[in-house]
Amino acid sequence: MIRVGVIGYGYWGPSLVRNFAELSGCRVVMTSDLQPERLALVQSRYPRIEVTRDSTELIDSPEIDAVAISTPVSSHYDLALRALRAGKHVLVEKPLTNTSEQALRLIEEAERRKLVLMVDHTFVYTGAVRKILELTESAGLGDLYYYDSVRINLGLFQYDVDVIYDLAVHDFAIMDYILPCKPVAISATGISHVHGGKENIAYITAFFEHALIAHVHVNWLSPVKVRQTLIGGSRRMIVYDDVQPSEKVKVYEKGIDLSSSTESAYQMLVSYRSGDMWAPKLEMTEALHVELSHFIDCIEKSQTPITDGHAGYRVVKVLEAATESVKGRGRLIELAGANARA
Amino acid sequence: MIRVGVIGYGYWGPSLVRNFAELSGCRVVMTSDLQPERLALVQSRYPRIEVTRDSTELIDSPEIDAVAISTPVSSHYDLALRALRAGKHVLVEKPLTNTSEQALRLIEEAERRKLVLMVDHTFVYTGAVRKILELTESAGLGDLYYYDSVRINLGLFQYDVDVIYDLAVHDFAIMDYILPCKPVAISATGISHVHGGKENIAYITAFFEHALIAHVHVNWLSPVKVRQTLIGGSRRMIVYDDVQPSEKVKVYEKGIDLSSSTESAYQMLVSYRSGDMWAPKLEMTEALHVELSHFIDCIEKSQTPITDGHAGYRVVKVLEAATESVKGRGRLIELAGANARA
Amino acid sequence: MIRVGVIGYGYWGPSLVRNFAELSGCRVVMTSDLQPERLALVQSRYPRIEVTRDSTELIDSPEIDAVAISTPVSSHYDLALRALRAGKHVLVEKPLTNTSEQALRLIEEAERRKLVLMVDHTFVYTGAVRKILELTESAGLGDLYYYDSVRINLGLFQYDVDVIYDLAVHDFAIMDYILPCKPVAISATGISHVHGGKENIAYITAFFEHALIAHVHVNWLSPVKVRQTLIGGSRRMIVYDDVQPSEKVKVYEKGIDLSSSTESAYQMLVSYRSGDMWAPKLEMTEALHVELSHFIDCIEKSQTPITDGHAGYRVVKVLEAATESVKGRGRLIELAGANARA
Amino acid sequence: MIRVGVIGYGYWGPSLVRNFAELSGCRVVMTSDLQPERLALVQSRYPRIEVTRDSTELIDSPEIDAVAISTPVSSHYDLALRALRAGKHVLVEKPLTNTSEQALRLIEEAERRKLVLMVDHTFVYTGAVRKILELTESAGLGDLYYYDSVRINLGLFQYDVDVIYDLAVHDFAIMDYILPCKPVAISATGISHVHGGKENIAYITAFFEHALIAHVHVNWLSPVKVRQTLIGGSRRMIVYDDVQPSEKVKVYEKGIDLSSSTESAYQMLVSYRSGDMWAPKLEMTEALHVELSHFIDCIEKSQTPITDGHAGYRVVKVLEAATESVKGRGRLIELAGANARA
Repeated sequence: MIRVGVIGYGYWGPSLVRNFAELSGCRVVMTSDLQPERLALVQSRYPRIEVTRDSTELIDSPEIDAVAISTPVSSHYDLALRALRAGKHVLVEKPLTNTSEQALRLIEEAERRKLVLMVDHTFVYTGAVRKILELTESAGLGDLYYYDSVRINLGLFQYDVDVIYDLAVHDFAIMDYILPCKPVAISATGISHVHGGKENIAYITAFFEHALIAHVHVNWLSPVKVRQTLIGGSRRMIVYDDVQPSEKVKVYEKGIDLSSSTESAYQMLVSYRSGDMWAPKLEMTEALHVELSHFIDCIEKSQTPITDGHAGYRVVKVLEAATESVKGRGRLIELAGANARA
Repeated sequence: MIRVGVIGYGYWGPSLVRNFAELSGCRVVMTSDLQPERLALVQSRYPRIEVTRDSTELIDSPEIDAVAISTPVSSHYDLALRALRAGKHVLVEKPLTNTSEQALRLIEEAERRKLVLMVDHTFVYTGAVRKILELTESAGLGDLYYYDSVRINLGLFQYDVDVIYDLAVHDFAIMDYILPCKPVAISATGISHVHGGKENIAYITAFFEHALIAHVHVNWLSPVKVRQTLIGGSRRMIVYDDVQPSEKVKVYEKGIDLSSSTESAYQMLVSYRSGDMWAPKLEMTEALHVELSHFIDCIEKSQTPITDGHAGYRVVKVLEAATESVKGRGRLIELAGANARA
Repeated sequence: MIRVGVIGYGYWGPSLVRNFAELSGCRVVMTSDLQPERLALVQSRYPRIEVTRDSTELIDSPEIDAVAISTPVSSHYDLALRALRAGKHVLVEKPLTNTSEQALRLIEEAERRKLVLMVDHTFVYTGAVRKILELTESAGLGDLYYYDSVRINLGLFQYDVDVIYDLAVHDFAIMDYILPCKPVAISATGISHVHGGKENIAYITAFFEHALIAHVHVNWLSPVKVRQTLIGGSRRMIVYDDVQPSEKVKVYEKGIDLSSSTESAYQMLVSYRSGDMWAPKLEMTEALHVELSHFIDCIEKSQTPITDGHAGYRVVKVLEAATESVKGRGRLIELAGANARA
Repeated sequence: MIRVGVIGYGYWGPSLVRNFAELSGCRVVMTSDLQPERLALVQSRYPRIEVTRDSTELIDSPEIDAVAISTPVSSHYDLALRALRAGKHVLVEKPLTNTSEQALRLIEEAERRKLVLMVDHTFVYTGAVRKILELTESAGLGDLYYYDSVRINLGLFQYDVDVIYDLAVHDFAIMDYILPCKPVAISATGISHVHGGKENIAYITAFFEHALIAHVHVNWLSPVKVRQTLIGGSRRMIVYDDVQPSEKVKVYEKGIDLSSSTESAYQMLVSYRSGDMWAPKLEMTEALHVELSHFIDCIEKSQTPITDGHAGYRVVKVLEAATESVKGRGRLIELAGANARA
C-alpha cells in the first residue's frame, strides 16, 4: 500500500486526489495547499485525508512514500527536488520544470536515490494516443511524412507560463511517445496581446532528421475549441479529433505513390490512393486512472515509467527552444544536444 | 461590347469562358490552347468561338480588346507582357507572376499604356470575403489580433509551383483585401516529400507593424479537406469555413478585456466575454461572375480594379519571401520594400 | 431551511442529493435505498446524511418537510401518495406516474393538503428550453407550424417502462412548457425487438387544433446519439441540438410566405425567405440546480411550480395515449378529456 | 446505337439529356417541351438535337427507339402509354405514375409488347445505396431491425404532388431495392400548411411481416437540409448521410445481444456491443450515368431493368397507401395485395 501526498489542490489536484482515492494499491494520506478554502474542500470531501498549508510538513512526513505535485510550473523544481531528497517517489504535473537544466538535476537526483520520477504527460495514457502508437509501431502508416496539431480555444491567460508551456507541452509529450525519432531543430513564431505578457498565440515547427516535419498551433484567443491532429504517412493517414465525443481517431486509406517516370529523369509521377476510412474502438478508461496506476506499479516493481524524467526533460528542451525561437521571430534553434543526451 | 480572348482551356479556362459567355457586356471571340483536344471541346460547346493553338494569333488579333490568361504560372509574365504591348487589357490567373520583379514590369507596362491589368484573386469576389471586409471596415471586430488560415487537402502535386504558390496565394490575396495593413516580415517552414520536388507542406507566419499576426498552413497531403480561417479581434471573432454548404461565416461575440490591476503594477486582469453567435446571410452570386463583370466594368469606365497589378505584386512579394524563408528553415525575410512601394 | 429526504440513490438520486446539498435554503437529512451498497456510498460522500433501507421511515420522519422520489416509475404513485398523506411536499422524477388516473389522485391529494407537488421535468429548466420559450412567447417565430424531435441512442433497455415513457417523456414535457396549446389526438407506431418486451422504437405524432403538428422519434437501438428538435414557425425556425457542446439553439430567418395568386383561384404562390442564422447565448446554470431551487422556493412561498402535478398529468396522458396507439398500429387516440380537465 | 427522345426539359430533363449525350451506345435525337425558351436552351447547348413542342411528334417519330419522360407526375401515365403503344422503350421519372392501377396497365402494355419499361429510381444507382445492398445481402448486418430515414429541407412546394410523392418516393425506392421483404401495412400522418394544398410534412411508418419497422420523415419546411438514413441490424448498423461530401456510409460494429436469463423466465438479459466504425470507399460514378447505361443495356440485350415497372408499381402502391393513411390520421392501410401481386 503506497501512501501518497498531494501538493496543490487547485485546478488539477482534485482529479489527482480523486483518482488516487479510487486506486486499490495506494491511499492519499495528506494534501497541502496555500489556500485554506481549498483545504476545507478536501476535508468536506475526504474526511480522512490530513490537510496542511505547509508543503514541507507533507514532504517530510514519514507516513508518505510518494508525492504528487500539481502547483504552478515555477515551483515544480524546488518541490520535486526537496521531495526526492526526502526519499519520496515523485510525480510532477506537466511540464516537468521551467528549464531543461532543472529537469536534468531532478533526473540525476532520482537516479542516484533509485526513486521513481515521473511526469504527468496525461495524453500519453489516453486510449486514443495508445491506439495511435499501436498503429505507428505496426508500420500501419508507412513512412511518417508529417505531424500537425491545432490546440486552440478561448483559454485562461496564465501569468507564469506562455501558451507554449501551457498547451504545446501536450503535443510534444504525445510526439515524444509516438514518433520513432526526436526533433533536431525548432523554428517558432508567436505573439502576446497583453502588454508585457507571455505569448498567447504560437506556431512551432519541429524538424527531424528524415523527411518528417511537425507543427503545433496553440492559441488562447480562439472563439472555437479545436483539438485536431493530423498524422500523415506513406500508407495511411490519421485524423485525431479530441473534441469529438466518439470516433476520436480516424484512419484513412489515403495517400500518394511516387515513382520515377521512365521517359524523363526530371519527371516524377504522383498517383493518388483513396480507400476506406476506419475508426477503431478506443479504450475508454480515464487516462489519469491508467497513469496513476502505472505510477504506483513502477514504485512497487522498481520500474521506469513510460513518462519518466527523461521524457519530461526532452519535452522541456523543445519548449525552451520554441520560446527562444519565438523571441528571434522564427530563428532556427538546434536541438542536437537534447537528443544525444536522451 | 468588349471582345475577349482566353488563353488556356485547361482547369480554370472553361470557367472563364463560361462566365464571360454569360455576361452581357462582352463576348468571347477566340480561345487558344496548346492541346487540340481542348480546342475541340471549346468548339463542341461554343460553335461560334474561334480557336487556335497559337497564342500569338490571339494576342495580335485586332478583333480582341481584352485577354484573359489561364496558363501555367511560368508563362504568365511573357503572355501578359505581349498582350499589354499589343494594347490589350489583361486579366491573369493567380498568382500574377513568378517573381515580384516581373509583376512590377507588368504594372509599369499597363500604366504607361493606360490599360487595365487585373489579377484573378477569385476569393476576393466571394460573398463570404466581401461580408468579412464589411465587418472589418465597420470596426465590428475591434482591433485585429490575428488571422489564421488552414487550406489543406489531398491535392494535385504540381511541378511548376510549390504549395505556397498554389494554395497560400489565396490566403494572402484575401488578407491583402481585408486587412487594414500589410505584412512587414515573413518566417516560413515547409517540406517536400518528392525528391527534388517543390514543397508540398508549408507553414507561413506574416508579421505586421502592430500587434497583429497572420499564419497560413497549406498542405497537398492531407486526408481531409479543410478551408478554415479564424480572424480574431478585440470585440468579435470570425470563423470562416469554406467547406460548409451554408453558414460559411460565423461571427462570435467573444473575446477578452484587458485591464491593469490597481493592486499591483505587475498584475494584469483578463476577463472573458462570451455572447451570441451570428451567421450573416451571404451573397450567393458566383465569385467569378462578379469578378469578370468588374473586369469588363473597369475596362469600359477606365477604372482601377480591386485586384489590380499592385495587389498581384504585393501577393507575389509575400510568396517569394515565404519560399525564400522556407529554404532558410524559418529565417526572417523583411518585406519593407514591398510596402514602401505599394 | 427546508429539510429534504431523497428516496432512491440509483441513477438520478446522486444528482438530486448533490444539487440539494449545494442549495442554501435546504438540507438533505435522510436518503433511502433498497441496496445497502448504495447507502454506503451516500455515507462515504455525505457523512452527515442519515440513511435507511426503509422508505417508510423516511416518509414518516418528523424531521423531514419535503420528499424527492427517484425510484422506478411503477413505485412513484405509492411513494408519492404516502408522502403527501404524511404531509410532505413532493418532487417526483419523470414521468409523474404510470397512469393518468394515478396522476389525478396525486393532484387531488396535494391540493386538499395544500402541499407542493412537482414533477422533475428537467429539460424545462435548461437554458436552452427557457430561451426557446422566450422566442416562442415573444412571437419571434410567428405562427407555429411544427415541432419535430429525434431522441435516439444505443440506450439501456428498461424493463418497467418502454422507450416512450423513458425518452419521449422529455419531449412532451418540453412541448407542454413551450407550446401555446395542448395536443388533441395521438397516432403512434413502434416495435419491440425483445420477445415479450416493451417497445424499444417508437414514432409518435401529436395533432393540435390549429395547423400545428408534432412528432417524436425515440429509439434505444441507434448507433449514434441524436438529440435534435426542429421548431418551424411562419417567421423563424429553430434547430435545438442538445448534443452540441455550444450553440445548442440556432434561430434561422427562414420560411415561406403564402399569398393567393390573383390570376387564378387555384394557384397559390409560395415565396421563400432566407436570412441570417443566430445562436443566442444560453444560461449555463445546471438545470437541476435551477429546478430544485424553484422547488424550495415554491414550498417557502406556497406557490405553484412550473412543472406541477397538472403538467405531470398532461404528459402522462399523452404517454398513455401513445402506448395505446402503438398497440393499435397507429390508431388515433383522442385526448379531448385531458385538455378539458387540465 | 439506340436513338433516344426526351420529353420534358425542365428540372431533371437537362440531366437526362447531358447523361445520354455522354453515353456511347445511344444518342439523343429529339427533345420536346411545352415552353419555347426551354427548347431554345436545348438548341444552344446541343445544336444537333431536334426540338419540338409536340410530344406526339416525338413519340411517333420512326427515328426514335426509346423515350425518356421527365414531366409532371400527372402526365406520366398518358405519355408512357402512348410511347409504349408506339413501340418505344420507356424510362419514366419517379414516381412511375399517380396511381398503382396506372402502373399495372403500363406493366401489362410493356410486357405484351416486349418493351423495356423502367422507372428512374435514381438513388438505387448511387455508389452509396449499392454498397448498402452489398452489406445487407452478405448478411453483414444480421437480422434487420429497422430502417429510418429523414429527408427534409426548405424545398419547393409543389402543386401536382404532395411531399410524399416528391420526397418519400426516394426512400421507398431504396427500401424496395435493399430490403429482403416488402411492407405489409402503412400508417402515416401529415399536415398541409397551404390552405387546400397538398401535405408538406409527412411521417410514414411501414410494417413488415417480421420484426422490422421502417419510418420516413419528409418535410418541405425545414430550415436545414437533412438526408440521413439509419439501418439497424442485429450485427451491425449503418448511418447513411447523403449531405456529407465524403464518408456517406458509416458501418458501426454496435448492437445488442439478447439472451434469456436462466434465473427467471421473465427476465431478459440485454448486453451491448460497441466496436469499430468503418466507412467503405464508394463508387463515385454519377448515378444517372450508371442508370442510363443500364437502360440502354437492357434495351440492347432484352433484359429486365433493376428498377422495372414492378418496382415502380410497388413504390406507387406504398405512396398511395401513405396518402390514404394521412387522410385517416394514421389509419392502418394493409398492403397485402401489392406483395401478392408483385
